[in-house]
Amino acid sequence: MDPIINAVLKPKSIAIIGASTKPNKIGFKVVENLKNCGYTGPVYPINPDAEEILGYKCYPNIKDVPYVVDMAVVTVPAQVVPTITREAGEKGVKGLSIITSGFSEVGDHALEEEVVKIAREYGMRIIGPNIIGVLSNSDKMNASFTNFLPLEGKAALVSQSGALLIAMDAATYTRRVGFDKMISIGNQADLDFADLIAYLNEDENTTCITLYIEGIKDGPRFMQEARKCTKPIIALKAGSSAHGAAAAASHTGSLAGSAKVYEAAFEQAGVAQALDLNDMFDTTLALSLQPTMKGDNLLIVTNGGGVGVLATDAAEKYGLPLKFAPEDVQAELRKHMPSFGSAKNPVDITGQAGLEGYYEGVKYAYAHPWVDGVVVLYCETSVTNPQEIAEAIYNALQESGASGKPVAVSLIGGDRCETAMKWLIERDIPTYNAPDLAVKAMASLRKQNEMLKTAHNGLYKPDDVDSEKARQIIAGARAKGRNALTEVEAKHVFKAYGLPVAPTDLAHNEDEAVKLAEQIGYPVVMKIVSPDILHKSDAGAVKVNIKNEQGVRDAWKLILENSLAYKADAEIDGVAIQEMAPWATEVIVGSVNDATFGPTLMFGLGGIFVEVMKDVTFKVAPIDEATALDMQSEIKSSKILQGVRGELPRDQKALAKVLAHYSYMIYDLQDEIAESDANPVIVYEDGQGVSVVDARIILTKK
Amino acid sequence: MDPIINAVLKPKSIAIIGASTKPNKIGFKVVENLKNCGYTGPVYPINPDAEEILGYKCYPNIKDVPYVVDMAVVTVPAQVVPTITREAGEKGVKGLSIITSGFSEVGDHALEEEVVKIAREYGMRIIGPNIIGVLSNSDKMNASFTNFLPLEGKAALVSQSGALLIAMDAATYTRRVGFDKMISIGNQADLDFADLIAYLNEDENTTCITLYIEGIKDGPRFMQEARKCTKPIIALKAGSSAHGAAAAASHTGSLAGSAKVYEAAFEQAGVAQALDLNDMFDTTLALSLQPTMKGDNLLIVTNGGGVGVLATDAAEKYGLPLKFAPEDVQAELRKHMPSFGSAKNPVDITGQAGLEGYYEGVKYAYAHPWVDGVVVLYCETSVTNPQEIAEAIYNALQESGASGKPVAVSLIGGDRCETAMKWLIERDIPTYNAPDLAVKAMASLRKQNEMLKTAHNGLYKPDDVDSEKARQIIAGARAKGRNALTEVEAKHVFKAYGLPVAPTDLAHNEDEAVKLAEQIGYPVVMKIVSPDILHKSDAGAVKVNIKNEQGVRDAWKLILENSLAYKADAEIDGVAIQEMAPWATEVIVGSVNDATFGPTLMFGLGGIFVEVMKDVTFKVAPIDEATALDMQSEIKSSKILQGVRGELPRDQKALAKVLAHYSYMIYDLQDEIAESDANPVIVYEDGQGVSVVDARIILTKK
Repeated sequence: MDPIINAVLKPKSIAIIGASTKPNKIGFKVVENLKNCGYTGPVYPINPDAEEILGYKCYPNIKDVPYVVDMAVVTVPAQVVPTITREAGEKGVKGLSIITSGFSEVGDHALEEEVVKIAREYGMRIIGPNIIGVLSNSDKMNASFTNFLPLEGKAALVSQSGALLIAMDAATYTRRVGFDKMISIGNQADLDFADLIAYLNEDENTTCITLYIEGIKDGPRFMQEARKCTKPIIALKAGSSAHGAAAAASHTGSLAGSAKVYEAAFEQAGVAQALDLNDMFDTTLALSLQPTMKGDNLLIVTNGGGVGVLATDAAEKYGLPLKFAPEDVQAELRKHMPSFGSAKNPVDITGQAGLEGYYEGVKYAYAHPWVDGVVVLYCETSVTNPQEIAEAIYNALQESGASGKPVAVSLIGGDRCETAMKWLIERDIPTYNAPDLAVKAMASLRKQNEMLKTAHNGLYKPDDVDSEKARQIIAGARAKGRNALTEVEAKHVFKAYGLPVAPTDLAHNEDEAVKLAEQIGYPVVMKIVSPDILHKSDAGAVKVNIKNEQGVRDAWKLILENSLAYKADAEIDGVAIQEMAPWATEVIVGSVNDATFGPTLMFGLGGIFVEVMKDVTFKVAPIDEATALDMQSEIKSSKILQGVRGELPRDQKALAKVLAHYSYMIYDLQDEIAESDANPVIVYEDGQGVSVVDARIILTKK
Repeated sequence: MDPIINAVLKPKSIAIIGASTKPNKIGFKVVENLKNCGYTGPVYPINPDAEEILGYKCYPNIKDVPYVVDMAVVTVPAQVVPTITREAGEKGVKGLSIITSGFSEVGDHALEEEVVKIAREYGMRIIGPNIIGVLSNSDKMNASFTNFLPLEGKAALVSQSGALLIAMDAATYTRRVGFDKMISIGNQADLDFADLIAYLNEDENTTCITLYIEGIKDGPRFMQEARKCTKPIIALKAGSSAHGAAAAASHTGSLAGSAKVYEAAFEQAGVAQALDLNDMFDTTLALSLQPTMKGDNLLIVTNGGGVGVLATDAAEKYGLPLKFAPEDVQAELRKHMPSFGSAKNPVDITGQAGLEGYYEGVKYAYAHPWVDGVVVLYCETSVTNPQEIAEAIYNALQESGASGKPVAVSLIGGDRCETAMKWLIERDIPTYNAPDLAVKAMASLRKQNEMLKTAHNGLYKPDDVDSEKARQIIAGARAKGRNALTEVEAKHVFKAYGLPVAPTDLAHNEDEAVKLAEQIGYPVVMKIVSPDILHKSDAGAVKVNIKNEQGVRDAWKLILENSLAYKADAEIDGVAIQEMAPWATEVIVGSVNDATFGPTLMFGLGGIFVEVMKDVTFKVAPIDEATALDMQSEIKSSKILQGVRGELPRDQKALAKVLAHYSYMIYDLQDEIAESDANPVIVYEDGQGVSVVDARIILTKK
């Protein structure tokens, strides 16, 4: 754990620079909140015009404080912040929590950078600026201007919206989702989401990290820290619609839109994405209180057939479909229910079920080795008391002799259910007011388990690549003043990264064309290679299925004739001679440099699937072959790769290798490649491999 | 309004047959609940062994009551119900509410049918059996065994699950969603969802009808009554996953699954489908309190940028994307916010916004003619009081001078927000605890407006059909003992319903084949017509692109030879001679008889789109041409019909006509056609029409 960051977030002493005697000022509020919420360390208000504030002795300047100061909360106007930052540095303060606004969020990047630069000189870290402050229950520290600490709990919230943090702080009580810490992150001038994930991963009072994100500054570092993190991370990403609208210029770019890339990055890094504010609370409740679900066997115990059906629907919807329990489990469960109940799954102990039914049913179900997780549903009835049912459920779990499996409860009813829900949550059992929410919570615990398994620590790097050769080809093109590679150049770059490019070579004259065609073997394809002719087919400068020498010679003349007719002054490098790949399933592999996450791989089936159906999937590069296989099953048209209408499956393994190598190429060459695609890539039957037929690389501007 | 049903649901006097003196008996509970909840009409407990119950005089038998009895609640054991039904009939009781269980839900259909039969003899109506009872706030009537009436409100709940009704009754108080009536519908032995929709549509205390549905008995009648209903209807359909698994046998049937058909039927009948229990409550709150939204212009007013972004995301997600307000609206709004606020949409009046900001902003926004609906968001802050904000919002709406537009509010925060939410809801303003929920509510009010426009009262019926001819063809096939039509017969049936069938006639010998080919015009297609050869291509019994007489003669011989090689004893009707339709976009039109809703139309694009992507859509038949156009835009591949890659749009109007006529055919012949398809149907460029190339009809078993 970084001791400096720890001093900022768990300070042993706090100064308030800009402390005020006026109760309506933030500089007063912070002092008041520290006092009222029970902060036990020394508090040093800095104010040249006051003797004391709320009993704390004031100092005219931070440098006048005769004791060690771990952290200073800053509430002075923006223009003064550089000065006080230097003073704090000179004093030896470890870090600043800058509440003050008026920096990059209103366009003043220079001022913000100046403050960070000064802090760096003194080894200080900054949280903010433009924040509410930092709150921590375990330290009884409310170093913010919102009035109270959140409901006690085990989650930590990091919020990029101050207004939302204040509202959520209050809402923790009504929604009964407890947090140990709430950290307002503001402009992330220094400490960002990645730093806080790393810190909270080692914080003993945090079991789950919840993020409200509007934008990440350094995507790769965020992913790196999230992957290292052993605690569940939940992210609510705002702004998916706005980003979706900002269509990029290039073909593949227009399909990306960074909302999709955020989604991919979260999944790859093992971060659970919340769908909305309530989902963020609901998921936090489950992930902060319960262990992950290690298998697929969810058992639902209910006293109502209707809510049982709703829960069954939800299980399918959230990807955790129910299976019938084995006969021995059913037989035991039947002992604790009326004859018209059902021991299948959901286990319906019927509306007549009382305390004994819930106790015995839940106890047996939770303890049985077949069961990986339990959802308990209760509909309020006229003859049962929700609190007693809650206690029966709790006791059953406690006395089951089992542990380490997740459980979620739903109590559906009125005030008495609300009280019982609170009671269960206080005992670390996530409890919801609707059956689908309990099932969804369990699905998130199941998904968490799967994500933690696949979120890799190391980045994929294949052995069989020749980066040097690729960089030479690119340097050659740049030397000629070009910002795009020719098809032949691009194919050689692909080849240097181990991609199975359809054999293609550049002929500079007719005789060389014949020679190359003989080497490659007939039939061949011939295409013009010219930086001035990008749409080769439109120019009549592509000829396919050429079968012999005479064909090559005829094609040579026709292609040059058509090319010059298309653009009389075109610069012509020659004609590409390429093996004619037999037709099979066409796919498109492409890349785009996402503004946040960098080189990102796109994959989809060729033709209308990408162009019309937008049936594409993205992954932040690089990815390994296992993830590349996942990618193939993520598209809606994945069944075509698996073989349809009696066709054999396509060579998905070879395609996975191509995707992984391609992803490494765009990652490794991210300073050189702005966008690229391999379109089409032909995928043959299983075992027959893959052939990259066309290649395109646009270079970064330098 | 049906006076008998009215007497059952709003009885002026109530008998309880099976009334008990024992407090733990349902027969006691109902009497107690009627008394405690304030029912003012006469109550007659029927019990031969008691003098009085809770102050009400008892009678030994219903026939002994010397006064008029509108409705009798029945709590006696199932086996006795037929007897007491007859006695009630003889007494002149108008209807029974049969709480007793033990009928069709445990398999005893005969007993249930007997009771209904007796009731019919006397003109009585029945609600139940197997129910909780009926509750009505406006009548202070709790004729049920759940303890209290729901929170007062304007919605009516009809629930097929008794347990859920009891739980929801209690939950109305904690979720603040008010209901005037709660009706437990049980086995629907007599009164069903359709009857209750018709009744509640005329009930002056109901503004919105909420249904919890496990199964509908008569789909077409449900749709008919829902279409007639002028009030919003919300349905939560349980069991979508189970039904999805029950794959039907036929090709199109396997794609249906009645969950999809339920979804289509709800949409066609103008019923809003709730996604889950909370969505049902949330949508009921909006639709029971607010007018529908007449246009697309939603304006969002917020004090927090973060929740504004979340609301913007939600608006796009729920199909009501935000537009910027016109400049004059923005200019006026800017007057009521700090300089760093935003008058765009969402209108961000900033965290500094107080009462004046909300009052002026909401008042102006709501009154402006450009605005069709307003969502107001509030994040709890340290310097504002949620209750005062709520009052400012309410007063702004009251004093705006405008009305008839919907509004929804979201207050995000703690206890004080909860109290303010309650206050607003009591004033008919739907208020939620998350920004996306307020936007979703508004989207449901928008959708309601659109659905009410398109849910037709009359059923579509085209003029140009010859049902008689179609029935003759079918009768002919049945006379030969067949349960499937040949392709030529099916095409003649299609033609009788005005479908543009590719000209096809049956040749019985080689010379006739030549004659028909000359009439139709070359090129032609020839196919075997045999009830024994269904997979014609596999048998080598289809020849395409036949260009002249010699070709016809060669094909004739080859087809017969191949057919007999395929099945030596095949019964052969002849060879179909068909116009060779030029290739264009292939679509599939098909039908399936849904168990609940009857003949249902399926539509999708041909080939992999239906077979691999399952990209199909369903409508309950018949549909008109406008709905048929909607259907074409509902599939994911709809862009292909609109013209892609520089192609002209397909003839969507002609296709709509085909879909509408096809839907009428399967509706009109539902007693004859079990399943059918037109596969493929070729759709040409706009204005060039459509051609049905192949036809298949399987008959119902008779």
